[in-house]
Amino acid sequence: MNYSAEIIAVGTEILLGSITNTDARDISVALSELGINVFRHTVVGDNPARLKQAVAEARSRADIIITTGGLGPTYDDLTKQTLSECFSLPLVFHPEEAEKIRGYFRAMGREMTDNNLQQAYLPRGCTILDNHNGTAPGCAFFAEGKHVIMLPGPPREMNMMLKTGALPYLRALSGEKIVSHNIRVFGLGESAVEDKLRALMQSLDNPTLAPYCSTGEVCLRVTARARDDAEAETMTRPVIDRVTEILGQYVYGVDVSSLQQQAFVLLSERGLTVSCAESCTGGLIAQRITQIPGASGVFCGGVVAYRDDVKRSILGVKPGTLSRFGAVSRDTAVEMAEGVRRLTGSDLAVASTGVCGPSTDERGTPVGTVFVALASQDGTWCRALSLGNDRERSQVIAASNAFDMLIKYLKGQEI
Amino acid sequence: MNYSAEIIAVGTEILLGSITNTDARDISVALSELGINVFRHTVVGDNPARLKQAVAEARSRADIIITTGGLGPTYDDLTKQTLSECFSLPLVFHPEEAEKIRGYFRAMGREMTDNNLQQAYLPRGCTILDNHNGTAPGCAFFAEGKHVIMLPGPPREMNMMLKTGALPYLRALSGEKIVSHNIRVFGLGESAVEDKLRALMQSLDNPTLAPYCSTGEVCLRVTARARDDAEAETMTRPVIDRVTEILGQYVYGVDVSSLQQQAFVLLSERGLTVSCAESCTGGLIAQRITQIPGASGVFCGGVVAYRDDVKRSILGVKPGTLSRFGAVSRDTAVEMAEGVRRLTGSDLAVASTGVCGPSTDERGTPVGTVFVALASQDGTWCRALSLGNDRERSQVIAASNAFDMLIKYLKGQEI
Repeated sequence: MNYSAEIIAVGTEILLGSITNTDARDISVALSELGINVFRHTVVGDNPARLKQAVAEARSRADIIITTGGLGPTYDDLTKQTLSECFSLPLVFHPEEAEKIRGYFRAMGREMTDNNLQQAYLPRGCTILDNHNGTAPGCAFFAEGKHVIMLPGPPREMNMMLKTGALPYLRALSGEKIVSHNIRVFGLGESAVEDKLRALMQSLDNPTLAPYCSTGEVCLRVTARARDDAEAETMTRPVIDRVTEILGQYVYGVDVSSLQQQAFVLLSERGLTVSCAESCTGGLIAQRITQIPGASGVFCGGVVAYRDDVKRSILGVKPGTLSRFGAVSRDTAVEMAEGVRRLTGSDLAVASTGVCGPSTDERGTPVGTVFVALASQDGTWCRALSLGNDRERSQVIAASNAFDMLIKYLKGQEI
Repeated sequence: MNYSAEIIAVGTEILLGSITNTDARDISVALSELGINVFRHTVVGDNPARLKQAVAEARSRADIIITTGGLGPTYDDLTKQTLSECFSLPLVFHPEEAEKIRGYFRAMGREMTDNNLQQAYLPRGCTILDNHNGTAPGCAFFAEGKHVIMLPGPPREMNMMLKTGALPYLRALSGEKIVSHNIRVFGLGESAVEDKLRALMQSLDNPTLAPYCSTGEVCLRVTARARDDAEAETMTRPVIDRVTEILGQYVYGVDVSSLQQQAFVLLSERGLTVSCAESCTGGLIAQRITQIPGASGVFCGGVVAYRDDVKRSILGVKPGTLSRFGAVSRDTAVEMAEGVRRLTGSDLAVASTGVCGPSTDERGTPVGTVFVALASQDGTWCRALSLGNDRERSQVIAASNAFDMLIKYLKGQEI
């Protein structure tokens, strides 16, 4: 059977824009991997009447309703009460859950306030889903022909409970399998990618091929449905090969999560280390690589050389280079990369310098001018970029170029 | 009149979890400031029948329907067609829009493919909203008693069109004003904040007081509705004062966007500079401060000293300190902060060292152990933290502590 689901987030703070509904995204990714179709995401406020209406609409379309938020101890946490009413189940007190909540506060060395015990009331007969990152338990039940799963709102709590509680519950329901692979592309815009792949995309039905964009990147997702994983895998392979053939070196990886992840994997495989010298990216290159658990195996360290005197004194950029070509120049980028490589003794080094805005530098270099360099024992390369006037985007794309240069170097491709 | 709105995002990629619906958040923030109530966010796939159903539901409840996504040139971009049918308006070709699209490609030096001209078809009689960051124009119209606004999906395009096109359109409709102020709190958990403020929150109706959480922080939003801004401002003031009185030094700022923004403002006011030496935060402190336009006025630079030899060779941490106390120790944090302050000549310096996981260091220091230090001409301070086993969260909270220490130092509070 092919299950369908809808995700309902409860939280006035989402409707006010104070927080982003990342929970719906995380649940969607997980459901898609289980072969469950998500028809809709809905967000309603902390308002029982509006939540009831959303539940009524969702149960008319979907087999599974997943809610996030409104399980906590405060007076506007009303999800359990409302869903219990929608499905005619009373809430009952669970003493063992109350004890867990007390234990959580003891372990954190904090005092428990009485309102926290509200969280120990759960719909009669439900499966309790433990909260390993907080106090509010979640729950799952089957009633009136629908599966209902209630998860907490804070993303850390939700994600842990999704993994340890909700997915095992759902895995038991789903028959058909969906397998997805992500082909990651850097250096080619969305329209250009679509143009090259339009005929292929339109010719496909199962598997499907769909493009998704993020800053400076395109991800192509190949998704196959089949009776089992092996069959689905066999179906996706020729599509991945065909896309890679069409896009060539613009494909930097398949099923890697990011440019830095791919660079990290290649560096680890080859036993090489890297360091970085950052001006306009301001620490973003280092931050992106150190997000990866185990980064210390390949990353020595870096210098954020935001001011010219730091470029000179720490990285050894020549005063003549700065005065002749300026801090935002090919020569400065090259000397920064070579300087930090020397300083840290790493095998490879990357560097960035540029004007990310909002205003131009004292030489009148156009906003968006960025140089990214890669130094190695075989020589130093530099890319000159024109990135426009969006500061954050320019920083991200400059850092992405540093990782892309590393990947190309490590794969022996043209840098 | 009090307008209500619903936001409908169109995009299968959101339902698959490939992208997050940040557009809904950004629109919600803007609408809230105009005094427009947002009742619901909905996400549907690239499917005309499901979109029609969502539009039918939304128009039964709200005065204003805002859609995002599905305006582009590809075959699954169906929003304009569908909304036009829902409101019985034909799509007509706009030659001047076609010319703008051609011009956009010329300016980018890229070749235009024919499918792009589909974007020049718009509902008859609509107000065209220019797209300054892309090719697909948006539009707004009033039909059958409802205001409909269609915006593109990519966040850069959507945000620019929201500001330059949609908000001017909406501003003309809204009478009542809503004013919000954000009181930012660091160092106190959500339940503790709610516990201290419960009586106050429950006693308030207009203005309201509501807590929102992000990693390691709580934001308290005070929102007043009134006939004009001045009246709303007068209503919020006593609530802000009362909250600040109750929470004391845990309040690090009002109407600042982040800890780093508050630190930046205070450093700028006092004409002081800062640098950073980062181990476990891996560049995040530098990256967070250099996100701020104008950061170069206060930020000299930093060193990401991920490995012990970098801590020694660049920052001058004593070999004896590393061998006796380990890299993750109070003494190392202090020497890192003092070392980078000396190296860059900055007035202040912060440093981080810790074990953010997933595994412990070679001395068996528990995962989550982090030391954050602040060096100044008046002395050096260090905080010892126990942050648990979530790597990303530990990095964020460690960096936040560095900014909090800076803020407390600059305000003359206890560090």
